[in-house]
Amino acid sequence: MITKQQNLNRQGLMMVLSSPSGAGKTSLSRKLLEIDKEIFLSVSYTTRPSRPGEENEKDYFFIDNNLFGKMRGDGEFLEYAKVFGFYYATPKTPVQKALESGFDVLFDIDWQGTQQLMDSTQEDLVKVFVLPPSVEELEKRLHNRKQDNDNIIQERMSRAADEISHYAEYDYIIVNDNFEDSLKIIHSIIIAERYKRQRQINALNIIKNLRNSL
Amino acid sequence: MITKQQNLNRQGLMMVLSSPSGAGKTSLSRKLLEIDKEIFLSVSYTTRPSRPGEENEKDYFFIDNNLFGKMRGDGEFLEYAKVFGFYYATPKTPVQKALESGFDVLFDIDWQGTQQLMDSTQEDLVKVFVLPPSVEELEKRLHNRKQDNDNIIQERMSRAADEISHYAEYDYIIVNDNFEDSLKIIHSIIIAERYKRQRQINALNIIKNLRNSL
Repeated sequence: MITKQQNLNRQGLMMVLSSPSGAGKTSLSRKLLEIDKEIFLSVSYTTRPSRPGEENEKDYFFIDNNLFGKMRGDGEFLEYAKVFGFYYATPKTPVQKALESGFDVLFDIDWQGTQQLMDSTQEDLVKVFVLPPSVEELEKRLHNRKQDNDNIIQERMSRAADEISHYAEYDYIIVNDNFEDSLKIIHSIIIAERYKRQRQINALNIIKNLRNSL
Repeated sequence: MITKQQNLNRQGLMMVLSSPSGAGKTSLSRKLLEIDKEIFLSVSYTTRPSRPGEENEKDYFFIDNNLFGKMRGDGEFLEYAKVFGFYYATPKTPVQKALESGFDVLFDIDWQGTQQLMDSTQEDLVKVFVLPPSVEELEKRLHNRKQDNDNIIQERMSRAADEISHYAEYDYIIVNDNFEDSLKIIHSIIIAERYKRQRQINALNIIKNLRNSL
């Protein structure tokens, strides 16, 4: 684990994780939060009903259409999209608070959300795309998680093609063959991005001090 | 450790590690080779005499001015520079072979070498700058390694100011407060850079297959 020492006073970065449904991004993002306490996961609002096992405020904030319309009208969303007839949205306030406190914010959203996030924020966004190793594997994973009936799975498969068509808008591409490997890669990307010159405000102060005393 | 599975057939990347002498980049680059077998360290040629403890072909290829002149004339160097009256150069052939075999090549060179490498190669270069945490710490480290007398140390200190003035030409900045932290950060940068979209040739094939069968 990286100590806080080198990260003092930094502004958090924003990282988007997109993938076709079933490629593993939700499991990856949950695990990432466990292993790195400087990461905050943006929890989306949705008008879709909760599925068995889903927890309000942890997996989503489950809200009705009225509240959704009001929040949208009040400009409380960084992005929103309609998928399979339901709305999904990213709330603005928790993200801003997390960034100001020096947390990195992780977004588990699709290409539409990513495009809107790019438009609506002044921050630079790190964009990671997670791919399933094959169509067979994707279909197998969708069946194995036993969340959806065959019709929904077929819808998800055709939606996967749409999602994958946007891969070129992302900075990093990971083929999720092996969960532990993919986790290590995504974590490496976050760590690396923290040390990009533009984000090393702390290092710039050290450079100033070094140059003054050399 | 990342398995080879996801990296098949990739072209290696080139990473430069620069820092003022004494900031720790040589120890860091040596250790990096131990923990990641996909990294190849470019060993420089030099006309400077070897110091106690330095090994020919491991730390440098120690050569005389005649051979240096001949190799330079034959275009065998990617870059070279004169520092404190001696030449230092990066040989071309071992780097090309390593890259073609899918190794990442690490360069332990200064800002002059980095600029020349940018000019002389078609490859995109990942540039990392390592800073000492303070001038006091830098001076302490130069004394502790007992390689140089006080005059040389003073020369190195004034050269440090020159080196640090070029920090803005680098992609990543690391303050080397703690060796293990810095090692983990540099390793994360290499892993992350392997998964940049432009370098994921293997992923592009998987994308093509996915799109054909969805």
